[in-house]
Amino acid sequence: MALIVHKYGGTSMGSTERIRNVAKRVAKWARAGHQMVVVPSAMSGETNRLLALAKELAPASLTEAYGRELDMLAATGEQASSALLAIALQAEGLESVSYAGWQVPIRTDSSYTKARIESIDDARVRSDLQAGRVVIVTGFQGIDDQGNITTLGRGGSDTSAVAVAAAMKADECLIYTDVDGVYTTDPRVVPEARRLHTVSFEEMLEMASMGSKVLQIRSVEFAGKYKVPLRVLSSFTPWDIDLNEEAKSGTLITFEEDENMEQAIVSGIAFNRDEAKISILGVPDKPGIAYQILGAVANANIEVDMIIQNISKDGKTDFSFTVNRNEYTKTMSLLNDTVLPALGATQVVGDTKICKVSIVGIGMRSHVGVASTMFRVLSEEGINIQMISTSEIKTSVVIDEKYMELAVRALHKAFDLDQVPA
Amino acid sequence: MALIVHKYGGTSMGSTERIRNVAKRVAKWARAGHQMVVVPSAMSGETNRLLALAKELAPASLTEAYGRELDMLAATGEQASSALLAIALQAEGLESVSYAGWQVPIRTDSSYTKARIESIDDARVRSDLQAGRVVIVTGFQGIDDQGNITTLGRGGSDTSAVAVAAAMKADECLIYTDVDGVYTTDPRVVPEARRLHTVSFEEMLEMASMGSKVLQIRSVEFAGKYKVPLRVLSSFTPWDIDLNEEAKSGTLITFEEDENMEQAIVSGIAFNRDEAKISILGVPDKPGIAYQILGAVANANIEVDMIIQNISKDGKTDFSFTVNRNEYTKTMSLLNDTVLPALGATQVVGDTKICKVSIVGIGMRSHVGVASTMFRVLSEEGINIQMISTSEIKTSVVIDEKYMELAVRALHKAFDLDQVPA
Repeated sequence: MALIVHKYGGTSMGSTERIRNVAKRVAKWARAGHQMVVVPSAMSGETNRLLALAKELAPASLTEAYGRELDMLAATGEQASSALLAIALQAEGLESVSYAGWQVPIRTDSSYTKARIESIDDARVRSDLQAGRVVIVTGFQGIDDQGNITTLGRGGSDTSAVAVAAAMKADECLIYTDVDGVYTTDPRVVPEARRLHTVSFEEMLEMASMGSKVLQIRSVEFAGKYKVPLRVLSSFTPWDIDLNEEAKSGTLITFEEDENMEQAIVSGIAFNRDEAKISILGVPDKPGIAYQILGAVANANIEVDMIIQNISKDGKTDFSFTVNRNEYTKTMSLLNDTVLPALGATQVVGDTKICKVSIVGIGMRSHVGVASTMFRVLSEEGINIQMISTSEIKTSVVIDEKYMELAVRALHKAFDLDQVPA
Repeated sequence: MALIVHKYGGTSMGSTERIRNVAKRVAKWARAGHQMVVVPSAMSGETNRLLALAKELAPASLTEAYGRELDMLAATGEQASSALLAIALQAEGLESVSYAGWQVPIRTDSSYTKARIESIDDARVRSDLQAGRVVIVTGFQGIDDQGNITTLGRGGSDTSAVAVAAAMKADECLIYTDVDGVYTTDPRVVPEARRLHTVSFEEMLEMASMGSKVLQIRSVEFAGKYKVPLRVLSSFTPWDIDLNEEAKSGTLITFEEDENMEQAIVSGIAFNRDEAKISILGVPDKPGIAYQILGAVANANIEVDMIIQNISKDGKTDFSFTVNRNEYTKTMSLLNDTVLPALGATQVVGDTKICKVSIVGIGMRSHVGVASTMFRVLSEEGINIQMISTSEIKTSVVIDEKYMELAVRALHKAFDLDQVPA
């Protein structure tokens, strides 16, 4: 008998028929003798519906001023879906009880709309499990030390599920979603993309942050920190498939490199065309310029992804970074109006028609020449590399966005990702 | 400066445009210097939408088995509308904060779907008021001593508002609704029906329980117990009408009989065609028969309204009562299958095509002949009276439902209810 956490996304909870299927699937696990905790998202569309109402009432700069009330509002979506799932489970003949985040309680800081979980008291949930109940815990939300409801931000239910699994020392946390696992790359771009049976925690982190949006990145960090075995699998399989088959499906995110792991050097290709690049040219090379530039950007609440600074020539250097395309205009104005004059730099240039392509793999740690293979493949395709950034298990390049599919397909093939590793 | 509680029903909260109007009205009161607590219902249709989802998942005998989860579900409606109203008030430039029942906290017993308020801690709300905030408190819900969410049953937001007003010792509790006050009878039946400027607490209790469904009856009991000045008024007046005019509109429910009160003998005519009558004939007249009959009915969770037992003849008596029409078949089966054999009674007869008409008035206490005037008027109209029941301030008759409008109109005229009292 194991303690298992299931997490179901909004699509899986999207109608009473689907909620009934979730209940039947959970009941199958419970009847096999497992202690079950289930973390559902709001019914699909519900969070958007609620936030659209708020927007009608207060259109301008909504999030900051009204954060507390937005969280009161949005948290109702998961409370309702959790209660409905408990009812569906009871209709299946299982004892079940649902708890809102504050009832567990799941304690968070007070950063409304993007709160972070600080602690989870598992006593109440554990006593229900021991009494033979299936426990439903609302995703996405918690309570701060003033008794206010907080939410964890979009996709926060993944984090809730992993955090609950960590607090309960669950044997496994299964994230049921609308994809059937983690792929070597997006199958819409590369039809030969292959599902990975296992992927390391570090690789998953790099994939998630690159736009392979299977899991909220914070949930992966959490799983890594607490070593929660995490599995991503499809909620679209029939609820009555064999439990052992279901338990082995999807992709398992692992935390130890053992002999059974797939030994590919590169595990996947991630890509992202939501970014824009910005370069400040002719920056006098002296201590503090990175802070002068990025401090101003951070103060304007603009998130920066890649940051590149090369060695200087004649006491001048060029400083480049990427931001989300939505923030491009705002960032350019900020730099031109205030940062450039203060820096004494020559010029700011930018480009929104770029994309970022990354190869990710634990194997890169111990294999030389992986990056150079990537550069050779792109060169053979006639693709010019605009920026390069590397980490231990990832190499990213910025290229013209029109070459994105070509680059991803060529790299996928070059690193044999369509082949099951020996 | 006064402490004022406003309560807004689901229709008043039915769209973002209406919520904005509520916010403007509340802002008018706050800017006039009053401390404001607002209790909103869920947006109209929302509670029904949520409960319909539950019904799809678990159709049979829903309320009892799934009470806890139904309350978790239904409570989200008011939490969402309260947060939206707080956002609308902030958009109007007022500081505002919303609290769910458990955050106040409003403590109740554990009778899911029909909980009763036990206590309200006003410290948190009071400190917000002192800080100059408008406080929104969700209607309809509270928390039991196990930390479970409870709801107060349909129309429970009226009770929440009155209870909050009582706990805070508010100067007045204003119930904004889709009627502009309490009438001498339903204006759809009698066009000459007149709005009462004041009505006594006891009269309001009798009117409310008789189907003049302006206020939930429990809220009137609560107001009476704690002497909360309660006003029913229209939410459809423009939000920017003069505050003093608005403060005097609608109907004030009073708790003291002073000289300024309208001195009518009869204040209103109530009626109800949702009932069915049932008579058990030839019951051996011995101690305990009322309990034998009504105990069985109560155990089956059937609510009884009028109960009539006349003196016995030849050791036998007839025992009659009324139940809601929806419960008629269930009650008849129960009586025929189990109660009748045990009683040794002759027969059970019933009729669903009846209605109850009542005259209500404080003045009946001190005026003789009011009931006989009622019987004369009905007799002159050729209406046969099937059952009679009286209390200090009410006389009710059961008649054939086809005569209901005729009876109500004739009584309204006979007691001069279309005339403003001298």
